[in-house]
Amino acid sequence: MRMIKWQNGTVLTPDQTKLPLQEVTLEIKTVEQMAEAIKTLRIRGAPLLGAAAGFGLAIAAYNSQATTPPQLIAELEAAGIVIKHQRPTAVNLFWGVDRVLNKVKSTQGTLEELKAATILEAQLIADEDAAQNHAIGKNGSVLIDDGDTILTHCNAGELATVEYGTALGVIRAAWEQGKKIKVIADETRPLLQGARLTVYELKRDGIPVTLITDNMAAYIMKKGLVNKVIVGADRIVQDAVFNKIGTYGVAVLAHEHNIPFYVAAPKSTFDLTSKADDITIEERNSDEVTHVGCQQTAPNNIAVYNPAFDATPLKYVSAIICETQIYYPQDYQTFKTKQQ
Amino acid sequence: MRMIKWQNGTVLTPDQTKLPLQEVTLEIKTVEQMAEAIKTLRIRGAPLLGAAAGFGLAIAAYNSQATTPPQLIAELEAAGIVIKHQRPTAVNLFWGVDRVLNKVKSTQGTLEELKAATILEAQLIADEDAAQNHAIGKNGSVLIDDGDTILTHCNAGELATVEYGTALGVIRAAWEQGKKIKVIADETRPLLQGARLTVYELKRDGIPVTLITDNMAAYIMKKGLVNKVIVGADRIVQDAVFNKIGTYGVAVLAHEHNIPFYVAAPKSTFDLTSKADDITIEERNSDEVTHVGCQQTAPNNIAVYNPAFDATPLKYVSAIICETQIYYPQDYQTFKTKQQ
Repeated sequence: MRMIKWQNGTVLTPDQTKLPLQEVTLEIKTVEQMAEAIKTLRIRGAPLLGAAAGFGLAIAAYNSQATTPPQLIAELEAAGIVIKHQRPTAVNLFWGVDRVLNKVKSTQGTLEELKAATILEAQLIADEDAAQNHAIGKNGSVLIDDGDTILTHCNAGELATVEYGTALGVIRAAWEQGKKIKVIADETRPLLQGARLTVYELKRDGIPVTLITDNMAAYIMKKGLVNKVIVGADRIVQDAVFNKIGTYGVAVLAHEHNIPFYVAAPKSTFDLTSKADDITIEERNSDEVTHVGCQQTAPNNIAVYNPAFDATPLKYVSAIICETQIYYPQDYQTFKTKQQ
Repeated sequence: MRMIKWQNGTVLTPDQTKLPLQEVTLEIKTVEQMAEAIKTLRIRGAPLLGAAAGFGLAIAAYNSQATTPPQLIAELEAAGIVIKHQRPTAVNLFWGVDRVLNKVKSTQGTLEELKAATILEAQLIADEDAAQNHAIGKNGSVLIDDGDTILTHCNAGELATVEYGTALGVIRAAWEQGKKIKVIADETRPLLQGARLTVYELKRDGIPVTLITDNMAAYIMKKGLVNKVIVGADRIVQDAVFNKIGTYGVAVLAHEHNIPFYVAAPKSTFDLTSKADDITIEERNSDEVTHVGCQQTAPNNIAVYNPAFDATPLKYVSAIICETQIYYPQDYQTFKTKQQ
């Protein structure tokens, strides 16, 4: 299912803050509405944000009252600044805005041709992301066997991408091939992307899914209730995979129980000039840990750690699935030499 | 601090359902009030329930209109049935009721002497539990060094016992000896005993505590932010320690990071005629996983696993601290031979 669609000047996308209890489709018609949707996490997930940024400029072009190409470009640049400003650390917003802007600036043509080029480039970003995820899914599906029960962490699904998902793309591809598989989703505190989003989208697609709390993973591994793990990635460096907090713990537990631990992510995630120790991990607001939604779960005024991500050393990773190939441990050495 | 007190026919104990946001002291004056407090988890924690059961009979004796010893005993037996009925799987309720009843039945004396014996036996249960926990704390404190940062899971504290706690008793003893220690508490989904109770009681006592979500334990271990783990136990069998779900995962992660993993529990927890595989683990209601308090966190009508406990094999346990001694791995062999 396409998570973000262009329809005659309107961008349609699910309001992810309402999921899983309400399915509300946003109809975004102005740059301001797009900015608000990004800021309030109605739209979230790195690849989806890249597409949303592109479509933000497409809306600006569609609504533009400019009478010359330079006027249009000035308007698009202004819209781009507004969009980037909503989440200054979301690199995909910057990437999406810049890709569309560069395309328009390098296009020779009439005002109408430039407007069309803006919209086309935004659609291209979305189409490319969808195609990439289908390729990841197809590549990764060879690792999934009939009868597997697969644990996943966080949401590396359709709701984080334009379509199909990365880790959940692999699961979808295996399911579509007729493999009878089951999924176990951990809830993924503090923001519960597993409980809220992964369970929602798998249930909607009819793929059997069971919810656990994060601290039940070791138990179900020991009981033999899971035989593969697959997760997404936010950044893959020379020696580690960065992903949502909790990923590293699941990887260590999988290793201890001899369960394969797979990572599915597009090549755009690779940052092979960096090592794990180079990366600063974002510490988020303590309220996320002391509350669940509006429900307070801990005393007032307490100390909290809230790292948003962790780094899983490659020794715990059985394979990295991307759109062009699968990297196995014997291939990881090439990551390190890429730097030279 | 004494968690349950007898004061002229009234039992005083904190209402644990109100913690951590409100500190309400229950004043329990009737058997019915005690039954309600047990049923609704205002009083919880195995050792504390044992004491509450005893005090339930003490209230019955205090309020009794009986005119003969046999009438009194009949009333106490009736009260015992009511108390046991509130949580039929809580063995400590049965143990506490039966201990007091047996004492009264074996006492020769006047009506007033039997009433006094009932109240005295209930107080003795409470005093013994408190003394046991202080002994566990003192024994375990030799394992804690100045400067340690200690991770704990769930609540093996004062709020689960009559006084001082088991795992938190060891932490308190080290703190009282002047060791500068810090504690990291994981929140302990699904019922959040770590966030609600452990953080509350340590903060109240001025012991530095930091809250994390369960899935951050691996991250903080890898970062070197914790150098010891200590937890309580619900049952210790020949080959494993049963404790709140999530304990096993923490133990595996501690092992992987070469961090000592200690268990603190009274000898009454030992069940050395059983092995891990003999024990059936309670599966609790799915609502606990799909909700946090009254806040729903997952879609409706989904599959859930909700095991309440897990078993940690002894190979992951660096020491077991009880009121008489510390058992180290070389002592565990004696557990197995106890059976013969």
